[in-house]
Order: sequence, then structure tokens, then C-alpha cells
Amino acid sequence: MAKTGTSKKKSGSKVSAAKAPAPTRSPLAPARFPAMAPVAGVRLTGRAVGLKKAKGVKDLMVAEMAPGTTAAGVLTRSKCPSAPVDWCRAILPLGKARVLVVNSGNANAFTGNAGDLQVAQTAGKAANLFGCRAQDVYIASTGVIGEPRAPDYIASKLGPLKKTLSAKSWKDAAQAIMTTDTFPKAATRKVKIGKAEVTLSGFAKGSGMIAPNMATMLGFVFTDAKIPAPVLQRLVRTAADDSFNAITVDSDTSTSDTVLLFATGQAKGQPRITSAADKALGEFKAALKDIFIDLAQQIVRDGEGAQKFVTVNVTGAESKRAARIVGLAIANSPLVKTAIAGEDPNWGRVVMAVGKAGEKADRDLLSIGFGETPITRNGQLVPDYDEAPVAAYMKGDEITLHVDLGVGRGRGTVWTCDLTHGYITINADYRS
Amino acid sequence: MAKTGTSKKKSGSKVSAAKAPAPTRSPLAPARFPAMAPVAGVRLTGRAVGLKKAKGVKDLMVAEMAPGTTAAGVLTRSKCPSAPVDWCRAILPLGKARVLVVNSGNANAFTGNAGDLQVAQTAGKAANLFGCRAQDVYIASTGVIGEPRAPDYIASKLGPLKKTLSAKSWKDAAQAIMTTDTFPKAATRKVKIGKAEVTLSGFAKGSGMIAPNMATMLGFVFTDAKIPAPVLQRLVRTAADDSFNAITVDSDTSTSDTVLLFATGQAKGQPRITSAADKALGEFKAALKDIFIDLAQQIVRDGEGAQKFVTVNVTGAESKRAARIVGLAIANSPLVKTAIAGEDPNWGRVVMAVGKAGEKADRDLLSIGFGETPITRNGQLVPDYDEAPVAAYMKGDEITLHVDLGVGRGRGTVWTCDLTHGYITINADYRS
Repeated sequence: MAKTGTSKKKSGSKVSAAKAPAPTRSPLAPARFPAMAPVAGVRLTGRAVGLKKAKGVKDLMVAEMAPGTTAAGVLTRSKCPSAPVDWCRAILPLGKARVLVVNSGNANAFTGNAGDLQVAQTAGKAANLFGCRAQDVYIASTGVIGEPRAPDYIASKLGPLKKTLSAKSWKDAAQAIMTTDTFPKAATRKVKIGKAEVTLSGFAKGSGMIAPNMATMLGFVFTDAKIPAPVLQRLVRTAADDSFNAITVDSDTSTSDTVLLFATGQAKGQPRITSAADKALGEFKAALKDIFIDLAQQIVRDGEGAQKFVTVNVTGAESKRAARIVGLAIANSPLVKTAIAGEDPNWGRVVMAVGKAGEKADRDLLSIGFGETPITRNGQLVPDYDEAPVAAYMKGDEITLHVDLGVGRGRGTVWTCDLTHGYITINADYRS
Repeated sequence: MAKTGTSKKKSGSKVSAAKAPAPTRSPLAPARFPAMAPVAGVRLTGRAVGLKKAKGVKDLMVAEMAPGTTAAGVLTRSKCPSAPVDWCRAILPLGKARVLVVNSGNANAFTGNAGDLQVAQTAGKAANLFGCRAQDVYIASTGVIGEPRAPDYIASKLGPLKKTLSAKSWKDAAQAIMTTDTFPKAATRKVKIGKAEVTLSGFAKGSGMIAPNMATMLGFVFTDAKIPAPVLQRLVRTAADDSFNAITVDSDTSTSDTVLLFATGQAKGQPRITSAADKALGEFKAALKDIFIDLAQQIVRDGEGAQKFVTVNVTGAESKRAARIVGLAIANSPLVKTAIAGEDPNWGRVVMAVGKAGEKADRDLLSIGFGETPITRNGQLVPDYDEAPVAAYMKGDEITLHVDLGVGRGRGTVWTCDLTHGYITINADYRS
């Protein structure tokens, strides 16, 4: 039952023999890994334990959090979620966390009872090692679907990893959760709650199966703020909606998407928080949204094969929700994405995508602009439209599309990347 | 207002200067153009009139139909439809047809008043030439969006084209509506209504912006059966649902999608038909569905960059509608499509796609098979699964995926193609 698919895979299959392509750093990657601020009450590590085929490549991260840490999160809406997602969904209402265990190289998805058993053994072992309850152990997995590992494989690695925990190992942790990502993604912020300075530090991974509907990838943010779990849950849901749920690479939703936020409560002198509406949370909420957007955009910048970072601004929609749907229709359209890859200011494909979104639109009210240049206004080309400056603009690697539907006041922004030969190359061959 | 975008396009734009790639015939194309049966009461033609940039390439088709011809059709659900679609939607309830005018090279979409004016002039001129009312003239356009032509451009070509009409020019007609299609698509059937033999002959074009939601391309079928327009409308809607609405190339829905069915009523000795439920229509309904599926599959076989024809069979869904939605989620998934392009039996991506479809599914009831080989049953790999024969199967150019959700009795089939470098190449450069 718990047999590994891998053992059979080599025989006779050209494709299985293919290696994951050597990861070239995305041209859209930030210049460097950020200088991460430690978070009081959090120690982390990332190490190689053999889950990925390539030797010595980090594939298991563990974070230990101080007693009293609260937890909140959002999980994939997939109807076939992975075993770790089922686990997190079960324990999230309890709102407590002491340990986070995340592996790459194997998604533990579609692994039947063997997958559930692995989660149970991992949680049980971590609880034993760290002196907490199993339900204080959060687990996430990413990588190949449908290939069960021995149920105690990860559990058996936790003891050695525990010895390597440190307050500074953010980069190791961010690297250990990568799959086809070409760079580790992290962000850090410091803000005040009342007079207390609090820190938010987190990391995330993409880079295929990125589409909204919750999370759509792995993201973990830690803070030393003291915030009760129900309040934390409201904050994470709101922030995720305008960040992780506003990005798309390929419209595919993973079985494993998970965004978790942990608050250790170690910050000194912070006023007591009892409601998400507390005015003292103003800066914190802004910073949380900001760090989520930062991480989400890094995921887009590492979209498989991405050569251009694309911002789609939709205004004049019937509602905020309608703006988001239209924005995603544009951002997910293969024809729009390939036009951008080809540096073609093909606004006709934007019209097509607006039309197919199904939200209220009127051809004769629609205005479109690329970058700073208006192209159409009220359903027609602007007088004396000159494509030359727009064509020049399309050669850049940051492209912004503006679409005004002219039917209401709803607005929204969606981020995506172009669709290139690189995406095909990566996904026609990939099995880690 | 009615200025042509083309005049400005050359200046400084690398992309605009790019030509449409030389069309290599799809490897999935049928061996030859079918021997088309003429339809009593129908004469057609297809000629080059300069709408496409390439000289001498056919781009305008006209069909003349006998007085008494009834019409029915389904049109794009795009919220930004082309001017010809608006026109057809307005005249379809009248149910009469005498002329069909279809051009390629320019979609007359997002062309504002100029586009409406072009449609009016085309219909008016055809009415004048053929001695009918303007509302008996059906019009469809395909090609570049957002570039108005002179309003009388097509009207001025109708006179010369009228002289070339013949009962046999099916191939000319099919060629004249092609855009990035690499082969003309047509099909023909003969069946009986009562004791009368009737003919159905038609043609269609793809091959980008192919996704369901009505039509999603151009398709025109002619029959000499005598069927009242309201009955014809029921027949076309039912048949389109299981054919044109069950295919997808890239999930994009065109502004111009149009499927029309014309019945000239010239067949001899046919019993009178007053209801779509009439038993005498049994063979006809089957043939109509069959010819629609034939044309729809030809469109998929000519999907941009297609190397493999993919059939997705979904069973055990909660309803027929749920089966279709799950089938389309699989067929539209870039990750599934690239895996097929890579000849990778990556069933994990099928699980992902089932999960994201949002319809009722249960990971532990899900069964998946590729070709004749069961891969998973009840949520787990089948015992002793051997990938070798499946990997060999994936090298073929006709791939069938079977997915049983195990939660009901709904079933459905969806057809698609793989996603290859060819799609990127075509769409990163294309403007006809």
C-alpha cells in the first residue's frame, strides 16, 4: 500500500529519466536575499535529508516557536488536498503552535492512508521532541504528488534537525521549501503596536500551480506580536485576499497550498489586543499585507519561465469582486500572457479576456492602457494612437496593464507573469 | 474614428513587423479534405480580397441560400462581442436566412460605431445583390481585434464574389475563413428524415481562443432538410453542447464565436416537422451531433502547436454538468497539458486538476487511468503499478485520460490538445 512510486519509474520511460532543468535564477529575482530580522521566540533550520533526488539540496525545514504562540492560516480550496493540508485544517481551530515542519521533494498528496500515517508520525515525533501536543505541530509538504514515503521518514530526521535550530537560519529555511523555485523568497518588517516594536519575518515558495483560491503556494510568517488566534485568523484572511489570492502564474491550484501566520507573543510592552478592529493594529495590519504582497510578488517573479512581471489594474468594475475576476481572466489568459512574452502590445487580447470573464462590461465603455499610454477610450482606439512608444514599453520587464470597465467603482490589482517557452520546457519534463 | 490601426503599427515595433509563422500542417490533421456532398439550395464561394496581409490568400466567403431557408445558431457568451455577433444575435430570432458572409483577417471586434456601420453596409449590399432583406444576411468575422476597416470594404467585394458562387466550392469556403488554422475543416453526412434523404455539409475554423462557452470558433452547417427555425434552434443548441462546447485548446473565449445551422428545405418528400421531439428526426439529430463533433475535433486537432489529441473521459461525477466541469479543468490545466506534451504520465497533475475544479470529489474514491491502463483506484496507486507501458502509450499522438470520481453517475467527455512550444511561438508573434 505504502509502496514508493519512484522505484518503478525509471523503467523504460524517457520522461521519468529526464532531470529537472538546472535552475537558472529568474531574471525578475530581487538582487539579494533580504537581511532578515529575527523574531523573538522563533528558531529555525533547513537541511538536506534526501527527499529531493539531487544530493545535498535542502528539503526539510523545522521551526520551533515559544510556548504561547498562536496560529492562524488559510489553506487550499482543492477538493483533493494533501494529507498535511487535512491535518492543518483540523488543528487550526485550536489556534496554538509550537512546531512547524515543512518538506519539499514530496507533496504527500494522493498518498491514501500512508500519507495520513506519515503526518501522524511526524506530528507525534515532533511533539515528543519539543515537549508539546501533536496538535501544536503544523505540517506542510510540497513536491511530487502520489508517491508515498515511509511513514517515519520525516519523523526520523527531526532529532538531528532540532540540533541545528537557530534564530538566524531564515535563508536555510526558505531554501529548504523550494521546488522549481530559482531563488529563496523572504521578507521582513518592523512596526509598532502601541509603543511596542514588533517584527514580522517570513518566507514563501512558488512556483508552479500558482493560482488564486487561497494561498496557492506555501507561505509562513512569524511575528513576536501577541495576538489571540481568532484575531490572527481574521488578519491573515484579509491580508491573504489582497496578496496571495491576487496572484496567478498558470491558473492551476495546488493540492498543498498553505499560508500560516504564527505569533509568539514575546514582544515587550505591547498593549493587549482583543479585536481585529483595534486601532493599535493599524500599522501591523498594513505591514502584514505588505509582507504578504512582497512574498506573493516574489512568487510571481519566480513563475516558471517568467521573463516579465505583469501588474493588471482593473478599475470601474461593478464591484471589488468583479474587478478581481476580470483581472484574473486577463492575467490567466494564455493569449494575453504569450502576447506579453512576445512584447506585442496586443490589447485586442485584453478585450477578449474582459469579454470572457463574464462580469458586467460594455464594449463601448471600455478603456485600456499599457504603462502610461492610453490605447482605447470608450470602446475605441484613442485618436492618433501611436503604437511605437507602447511597443518600446513592452520590451521592459515590468509591464502594467490598466483596464477601466466604466460600469462602476470596483477596483482591484492582480499580479502575474508572462507565458514563455521556459514554462513549457520546465513543465514538460519536471518530476523532482 | 474609423481609422485603421494597421497604418500606425509598423513604426518601431519589432513585434508588429513579425509575420505570422508559416503554417505547417498539423500532425494531427486528417489525411485529406472530405468529399463534400452538395446541399440543394446552397451555393458558395471563397476568394482573396485583401483582408489578410499575405497576397492571394482567401479571406472572404459568401454562401447564397434558397428562399425559405431557416436559420438557427449559438453565439459567443463574451461580454465584449464583435459587431457581427451583435448583428447575428439580433436577427436570429427572425429565423430566416438567404446569405452568409464570413471574412477572415479582421474580426471587426472592438471597432465601435465603425464596426456596426461595416456590418450594416455589408448586410445592405448583400440584400441588394441577392434580392432579400438585410435581416436575412448573416455575418461573421475572424482575425485581428480592434482594427476597423473602411465600412464598405467587404460590401464592395460582394458583387465580384457573387459571380463565382457554385454548389461545389466547399473547400474554397472552408479555406476563406481560416486564420492560424493549418488545414481547412469540413464534414458531410447523409441521413434520412422519414423516407427522404437529406444532406448535412459544413465547415469550421479554429484554432486559437478555443474554449467552451458556446461555439468558441466559427462553424457553419447547411442542410436541405425542411425544419422550422424554432425546432432548428433547439437542435443546434443541444448538438453544440456536446461538441463545440466540449472542446478546449487554451481556455480563451473569442469575441466572435459563432455556430450557425441553415436549412434550405429543398429535400424532396420529407415529412413535415413541427417539433424537436419528432421521432422522424432521430437520424438527423444523431448526424447533426456527429458532424458537429467531427468539426469540433478537427478544431482541436489544429489547436495551435498541438502535437497530441487528448480525450478526457469523466465518469462517476455528481451530475453531467459536474463531469463537464471536471473534464474542462483537466483539459485546461497548463500543467496537465505540458505533461502530455512531455509524454509524461504525470497523473498527479490530473489529481490536482480534479481538486481545483471545485466539483464534488473525494480523494479516496478517485480512480485514474491513461489509455487502457488503470493507474489509481480508490485514491491510491494500483498494486504493482508499472509505469513502463503507460510511458510507451504517452508517445502516441492520441491520448485518452479516464477519471472516475466515484461520487455519482454523471459522465462527460471533453477533447483538447497538448500545450507545446508551438503554442508559445505562434502566439508570441501572431498578428495576421
